Amino acid sequence: MKLLEERIIQDGRILPGDVLKIDNFLNHQIDVRLMDQIGDEFYKLFKDTAPTRIMTIEASGIAIAMSTSRSFGYLPIVFAKKTAASNMSSDVYQAKEHSYTRNVDYTVHVAKNYLSKDDRVLILDDFLANGEAMKALISICEQAGAEVVGCGAVVAKTYQPGERTLKGMGYKVEVLARVKSMSDDGKIEFED
Amino acid sequence: MKLLEERIIQDGRILPGDVLKIDNFLNHQIDVRLMDQIGDEFYKLFKDTAPTRIMTIEASGIAIAMSTSRSFGYLPIVFAKKTAASNMSSDVYQAKEHSYTRNVDYTVHVAKNYLSKDDRVLILDDFLANGEAMKALISICEQAGAEVVGCGAVVAKTYQPGERTLKGMGYKVEVLARVKSMSDDGKIEFED
Repeated sequence: MKLLEERIIQDGRILPGDVLKIDNFLNHQIDVRLMDQIGDEFYKLFKDTAPTRIMTIEASGIAIAMSTSRSFGYLPIVFAKKTAASNMSSDVYQAKEHSYTRNVDYTVHVAKNYLSKDDRVLILDDFLANGEAMKALISICEQAGAEVVGCGAVVAKTYQPGERTLKGMGYKVEVLARVKSMSDDGKIEFED
Repeated sequence: MKLLEERIIQDGRILPGDVLKIDNFLNHQIDVRLMDQIGDEFYKLFKDTAPTRIMTIEASGIAIAMSTSRSFGYLPIVFAKKTAASNMSSDVYQAKEHSYTRNVDYTVHVAKNYLSKDDRVLILDDFLANGEAMKALISICEQAGAEVVGCGAVVAKTYQPGERTLKGMGYKVEVLARVKSMSDDGKIEFED
């Protein structure tokens, strides 16, 4: 997605530890117009898979899911939660996720009410790195008997294993901006 | 907001501890069409305050902010974060929030880049109970020298102090569904 790549080059910052920070439009400040264009792009890429539901994970995925839902003519969203609230029902599907960014393990969960065996699920997230979050969401869909029809991420680094891993599991994976390399002087290159 | 009240009566569940659970359209599963109607309602209520930016707090506030941003013709959103990620800059405004639902204290923070003294901020959230989250966001705006032009919540219980507290501080506060009472047999009454 050319527009997104240009925006990453314009606004992205490379931090120590191979971190690409694009929190001025994606996951802290949100540029809603760009997010709607991202939603339209996911619609083009996944419309043939006929999803009935979008699944994502709090918090950054929610904005992406909102725009994409609208591009599809309003699909219901369910977002997985990372922490057990005191008013969370015990009637949930759960999966483990290791976050490399924060170096902690999460238990992510979705209430059983909001996912059924008849659902065709499009899983969306902001970053695809090692694929840990996506794999946790896929596991939750499997527990529900729901079919995962696709996995979409806004950004991935192609030298990290997430995209390859998910494709190896047989899933349709689409990434809107595929980072091939980042250099210390701030240069970012994309794969076609 | 009549449509919202009807939906709460239809789908809301009352749990022990005076908990109103409406996570099948607001904060776990999301009904995006309803969320857009909520955004339109906030636009009507706050358009005269001429906000330049919407501020909310992860995670449930993001969906509300997305729809409202669009109703305003695309305002930038910034959402406060609750946990310090390892790649979070130290250059942040911080405030303490006590969550009664989870019975823990959070430090919420916003990067200084995404809030300026020229901003007119509309603060939005899903629930307004004791006003702890809103007060933390107001404190962050004060630190930035930004003006808070309004506080909007989707649901509040009028017997909890949040709405009164914020109004007492001089803020314009709008709540779309004001719960007057909830009974053990599932009956929910609203104030006009």
